[in-house]
Amino acid sequence: MADYHALWESLGMDLDTHDQLCAALPPLFEETFLNQTDRPEGMDYFNMVIAEVHGLRIQELADHKARGGLVVGSFCVYVPEEIVSALGGVLVGLCAGSQFWVPAGEKVLPRSLCPLIKAGLGAKLSRTCPYFQSVDLVVGENTCDGKKKAWEILGQHVPMHVMDLPNRKSPAGFALWREEIRRLTEELERRTGRTLTYENLLEATRRVDDKRRALQKLHGTRKNDPSPLSGTDALVTTQIAFYDDVPRYTAMTNQLAEECLARIAQGKGAFPVGTKRVLLTGTPVVVPNWKIHHLIETSGAVVVGEENCTGSRYYESTTDLSGVRDLPSLLDALAHRYLDGIHCACFSPNEERFDDVVRLARETGAQGVVDATLSFCTTYQVEGENLRRRLAQEGIPLLSLETDYTPGDEGQLRTRIEAFLENLG
Amino acid sequence: MADYHALWESLGMDLDTHDQLCAALPPLFEETFLNQTDRPEGMDYFNMVIAEVHGLRIQELADHKARGGLVVGSFCVYVPEEIVSALGGVLVGLCAGSQFWVPAGEKVLPRSLCPLIKAGLGAKLSRTCPYFQSVDLVVGENTCDGKKKAWEILGQHVPMHVMDLPNRKSPAGFALWREEIRRLTEELERRTGRTLTYENLLEATRRVDDKRRALQKLHGTRKNDPSPLSGTDALVTTQIAFYDDVPRYTAMTNQLAEECLARIAQGKGAFPVGTKRVLLTGTPVVVPNWKIHHLIETSGAVVVGEENCTGSRYYESTTDLSGVRDLPSLLDALAHRYLDGIHCACFSPNEERFDDVVRLARETGAQGVVDATLSFCTTYQVEGENLRRRLAQEGIPLLSLETDYTPGDEGQLRTRIEAFLENLG
Repeated sequence: MADYHALWESLGMDLDTHDQLCAALPPLFEETFLNQTDRPEGMDYFNMVIAEVHGLRIQELADHKARGGLVVGSFCVYVPEEIVSALGGVLVGLCAGSQFWVPAGEKVLPRSLCPLIKAGLGAKLSRTCPYFQSVDLVVGENTCDGKKKAWEILGQHVPMHVMDLPNRKSPAGFALWREEIRRLTEELERRTGRTLTYENLLEATRRVDDKRRALQKLHGTRKNDPSPLSGTDALVTTQIAFYDDVPRYTAMTNQLAEECLARIAQGKGAFPVGTKRVLLTGTPVVVPNWKIHHLIETSGAVVVGEENCTGSRYYESTTDLSGVRDLPSLLDALAHRYLDGIHCACFSPNEERFDDVVRLARETGAQGVVDATLSFCTTYQVEGENLRRRLAQEGIPLLSLETDYTPGDEGQLRTRIEAFLENLG
Repeated sequence: MADYHALWESLGMDLDTHDQLCAALPPLFEETFLNQTDRPEGMDYFNMVIAEVHGLRIQELADHKARGGLVVGSFCVYVPEEIVSALGGVLVGLCAGSQFWVPAGEKVLPRSLCPLIKAGLGAKLSRTCPYFQSVDLVVGENTCDGKKKAWEILGQHVPMHVMDLPNRKSPAGFALWREEIRRLTEELERRTGRTLTYENLLEATRRVDDKRRALQKLHGTRKNDPSPLSGTDALVTTQIAFYDDVPRYTAMTNQLAEECLARIAQGKGAFPVGTKRVLLTGTPVVVPNWKIHHLIETSGAVVVGEENCTGSRYYESTTDLSGVRDLPSLLDALAHRYLDGIHCACFSPNEERFDDVVRLARETGAQGVVDATLSFCTTYQVEGENLRRRLAQEGIPLLSLETDYTPGDEGQLRTRIEAFLENLG
């Protein structure tokens, strides 16, 4: 990696502390990714993106800002990238995946809160996340109590706009969400000086949906036995979708998908035919939190899908353009794509998620499901009880795991994963 | 107490386990309440209500049902008692205040969840709450992730209707809440066979607001030094408001308030003049969770107010009838009373709560504030950081405590409370 210290300094970062973080990432990446064998060549691009995650991409964002473009940060798949993109902005995911940031977050947040939120606030407060330092605006959303209330603290340190979500999908809930999309548009128009039009939003919607379709194509190849791609590699490609330049990312993902199809034709897999197959479900898995995938795939199984926000919830639904003819109808379609197309535990009821888990397990030929939740994630943990009942009805084995960002639980998790895999049919 | 075993058996209760609970309550009540000195005579009624909490009142509910009346249960101050009452129903709070019920709740819920929710579900699952066994319907609300998701489990064991709430107060949020009030009305009309009218809702609104005004009058007397009423006694009067027959409760509370005014005139207090005064804020304190009040008032201070859902959030706001002329405008006014008049941490932002805490601390002459939250209550715990900042700005000392329903933390809590009180001006 080139030397980006001048760039980081210009962003007001704490350079010494950030250097410690930069030193910790490469060995973790090497152990998790580069030690794998039989990887597709197309993963080289994604290796590079991770190696440059705090460098090249940050330089690109700085260049974008120098050209007058807006950079918007988010923590959630409900923030509509299409609108940001239509107004010439770039949407990026913010740092929230490492224990490195948790202690700084715990200075202002209770310990009994999910590590993702503590890390997110800690990353800003410690000035060690170059994405946080680059954004002109953070768009938060009320998808859980922890984030909803943490925005009140984060908003004292960075410009924030919060989108409300209903807790139940209903006509009145849709009206509320549609109004929130209008409010976001207004805020972004004000900040960019641009106007959202039918044309620019349609173009952006197609651009973002092309990215989602590339991911569908890539992840679809994992249904094959052997899967042409390890779950660990598949995960990181989705994680990178939150950060990378959209058209470039789409092209590289389509290219990787083509290579995976060719590997299938050649009978080449990341693991041997007949390797036990597992579907992961649960809470988001953000960079560099690769723990559960790594544990499963070094315990003799392959992860063949992720029913989570850094998985199918991110890319499975696209905007239905069939009835769209003007800006209001396009915004309606977009609002439906987000509200109806994503099955998050923030909604009650959320039976569609159970349908998704069962369908994905069947489609991918998974013999079992691992429900991995971050500690203190109330919505997914309570929902886990009804997921357990549903999967028992369907005869699909389930392992429920709770984890955080500390390495301390790996031994215990590995023991449980190995025992679960041993019993899979 | 008379023998209610036949009644309890008719409700399908687990009699043996419930007997254990019935045996535990009187000594706890005696230690907490009856050991106090200089209590107003009007507390005799409330002593009796607690003594008969699983007896006489349950018989009254059975009699009400025998006459064709509906009994509705709830866990929250957002469930509009006025509408239940207008349709001839009785609204009662459900059991959720004792560790006794927690283990049964933990069979279906994560341990890292607030004890109130675990106890609530446990009370139903263990069939040891006669209120749960008496209700025709539970009305839940989406005020926190834990409850929102727990309804999905509870709804498998009892008829449920869930009201959605927005996470932010906004015009679209109000429209959503107003629609939820309409949906509740529809559900209750269907179950009662009655029709909500301007006349019956206006009468019920006045009836419920008379109860709130009686509480305002009673708690207003605590501004005096000496307070004519201990905080522990004041707390239990508000707790009973959630269970008791409304007109009788209102009459007895007004009578107690009159006695307190007479005591002020006579200079009679629950504690000596000059006793250190504390305002409590935080999460709901439901029967028989009297821990924090008891610890404070046996550590040399008096609790002079509760800014919580079993305190001012329950009784401070009434329905503004000034622009009301028909059923729709009355329902609007009612919706505003609930959404605008209660400052719950489920909303973001919720600065009005900080205003309330500061105002109540000043009005009651409290020298300090104790922010007591139940373990894992994310909304109030995260909000605690900004409460801390606000009270520091105002120069009001704050003690933040986290507690659950186990007795194990009493020693540690007492030490912290004593140290806090020692430093109060």
